[in-house]
Amino acid sequence: MEYETPLFFHVMEYAAQADRDVVDMVSGNPDWEPPEALRDGLREYADFDPDRFQYPPSAGLRELREEIAARRGVDVEQVVITNGAGEANYLAMARALERDRGREILLTDPVYSYYPGKTTMLGGTQSYVAADEEGQLDPADVRAAASEETAAIVANSPNNPTGAVYPEETIRELVAIAEEYDAILVSDEVYDHYDLSGRFTSALRFDSDHRIVTNAFSKSLAITGFRVGYAVFPPHLVENARSRHMLVNVAGSRPAQYAVLRALRETGPDYYERNRALLADRVETFTDALDAAGAEYTTPQGAFYVMARFDGYPGTLENVEKLVDEAGVAGMPGEAFGDSRRDWLRFALVTPRVEEAADRLASYFE
Amino acid sequence: MEYETPLFFHVMEYAAQADRDVVDMVSGNPDWEPPEALRDGLREYADFDPDRFQYPPSAGLRELREEIAARRGVDVEQVVITNGAGEANYLAMARALERDRGREILLTDPVYSYYPGKTTMLGGTQSYVAADEEGQLDPADVRAAASEETAAIVANSPNNPTGAVYPEETIRELVAIAEEYDAILVSDEVYDHYDLSGRFTSALRFDSDHRIVTNAFSKSLAITGFRVGYAVFPPHLVENARSRHMLVNVAGSRPAQYAVLRALRETGPDYYERNRALLADRVETFTDALDAAGAEYTTPQGAFYVMARFDGYPGTLENVEKLVDEAGVAGMPGEAFGDSRRDWLRFALVTPRVEEAADRLASYFE
Repeated sequence: MEYETPLFFHVMEYAAQADRDVVDMVSGNPDWEPPEALRDGLREYADFDPDRFQYPPSAGLRELREEIAARRGVDVEQVVITNGAGEANYLAMARALERDRGREILLTDPVYSYYPGKTTMLGGTQSYVAADEEGQLDPADVRAAASEETAAIVANSPNNPTGAVYPEETIRELVAIAEEYDAILVSDEVYDHYDLSGRFTSALRFDSDHRIVTNAFSKSLAITGFRVGYAVFPPHLVENARSRHMLVNVAGSRPAQYAVLRALRETGPDYYERNRALLADRVETFTDALDAAGAEYTTPQGAFYVMARFDGYPGTLENVEKLVDEAGVAGMPGEAFGDSRRDWLRFALVTPRVEEAADRLASYFE
Repeated sequence: MEYETPLFFHVMEYAAQADRDVVDMVSGNPDWEPPEALRDGLREYADFDPDRFQYPPSAGLRELREEIAARRGVDVEQVVITNGAGEANYLAMARALERDRGREILLTDPVYSYYPGKTTMLGGTQSYVAADEEGQLDPADVRAAASEETAAIVANSPNNPTGAVYPEETIRELVAIAEEYDAILVSDEVYDHYDLSGRFTSALRFDSDHRIVTNAFSKSLAITGFRVGYAVFPPHLVENARSRHMLVNVAGSRPAQYAVLRALRETGPDYYERNRALLADRVETFTDALDAAGAEYTTPQGAFYVMARFDGYPGTLENVEKLVDEAGVAGMPGEAFGDSRRDWLRFALVTPRVEEAADRLASYFE
């Protein structure tokens, strides 16, 4: 079986090996500080008794699950701690396909590159619903695409790569469509703390046996390398998901879970607000420079990314590599996110050098 | 799809909720100290720059892979760092099934309880080859059971639950059988540092495109909760395994990987020798008491476990629960490990209270 390995790692390697200074705007790694309490959690862990170095419960540290359940207004038994949002999405999509209602996974175009690969790996087939130019999804299009064959609809808001934040009405409709077709809405909300629009709606707002919400602390606490995420399942779907989690990973890494627990308990809203404000500043800086360069772009309502189009410079891997070598800026090829954005490039704003990168692009394309 | 959830968690919960003091001999969690350098690794991590809090390479920290490759005498590209041996075995079995040579996984009876569940989850079918009373596997039996349908042979030495350590000849033959039938030997060697017989042989000794070796630092460094393991693949099988790892987990937890790296570099052989000696002492203490209680048992050549049989007291879950309530000792039901050990109980020697447990069993059964 061949899967499509996401291009991220290839492009990051190419940029790292370039002969010149390159501003890395490839990956979604926050460049800001994790909360101090998270560092404290690791320090404290180093002195724990040996029994704290052994298996946590398979579904995750109880106190962490309780903390999440309380914040999200769900029952603790619905929460499974995962190895990042990556495993959460894997469990959710696997769970949807295991219901044997159909093999089709409805994805959006543009799409976050991991979803199609996970679908293939799990023996499903992909169908795509096109988002509009702003990245918004018309629920009528999703309904038209759905059928008896639909096992899951995978949505991601705030969206990677478009930056779109779906309005409440869209989320409500996606849940309704999943119910109508006896399918599962998988709502990946990993960028929920980076909503710049003020209108982010979680799928948890609409109680349903037909939606699984996935999330992680990778972005919100700036710790993509700790691998602590979670999924919230409807009660009747959680048991088999827990079994799969146990059979694949046994459990997640315990010191990372503990550090996250401390960070959640001791980090105030100012931490999240500060990072959102930083991101909003960078959006403005970058899009101003894109204006100056005469590029077309979408202003993100959330998440970390700006999609841009430069006249006569399609978003191929070849062009991305050329941009690394000739402009000193590394982005992601639009073609990595589906057919509709082949002409576009995606730039991640998680570098303090956003202004420099924008200037480089402006002079390269002028 | 229904999987068989391993019974471990159920029994541990039952023991924890008992109304009396219970010696926990259920799980394979070392009760001894992790290396000091591992604690130092966490402490050091707490002060790292924010970029060290972001994604490690998907296949694991390069320096950790290099350290493992050098120790095991393989190419670094063959090594994938996993979320413990659990994920390593999952990737290995998935890889074997993906070759589309057959759907059968050959397991041993007794069997480590996770393997059958993983097989079902991956769409394979289980066949069992009986080990002898000492837990040894006759390669002729494996050859007789193998066929065109065989995708993989999963072996575990030192063995959980029997404590058998397979001689070199057995490992050589298992590799040969995998080659004859174009199957994959998955050799789970997670207890390699707890060989009390001096005759442990790694499947890496026999170069072959038909064997995958899995391992972890969970037992050797007494950190089952850190979730750092690895698999060594033949060169032509590694790429798809890496893709699956990426699509399931993206990467493992980075602080845990770093702490393991420090521990590997700075921990001398005396650490491992001390723990082996402790285990050997406990084996003697426990089996002496079993003698006194008139029980039948197997003296382990390695790993953490003693299988014992008490007259008229079969190894059912019900009897295990009764033993918790009435004797204050929690073991695992033999039926969890396959048909051949239904009359037996498994006791894990990873508690300082081995002598007390043995005394309790002796007075209960006398």
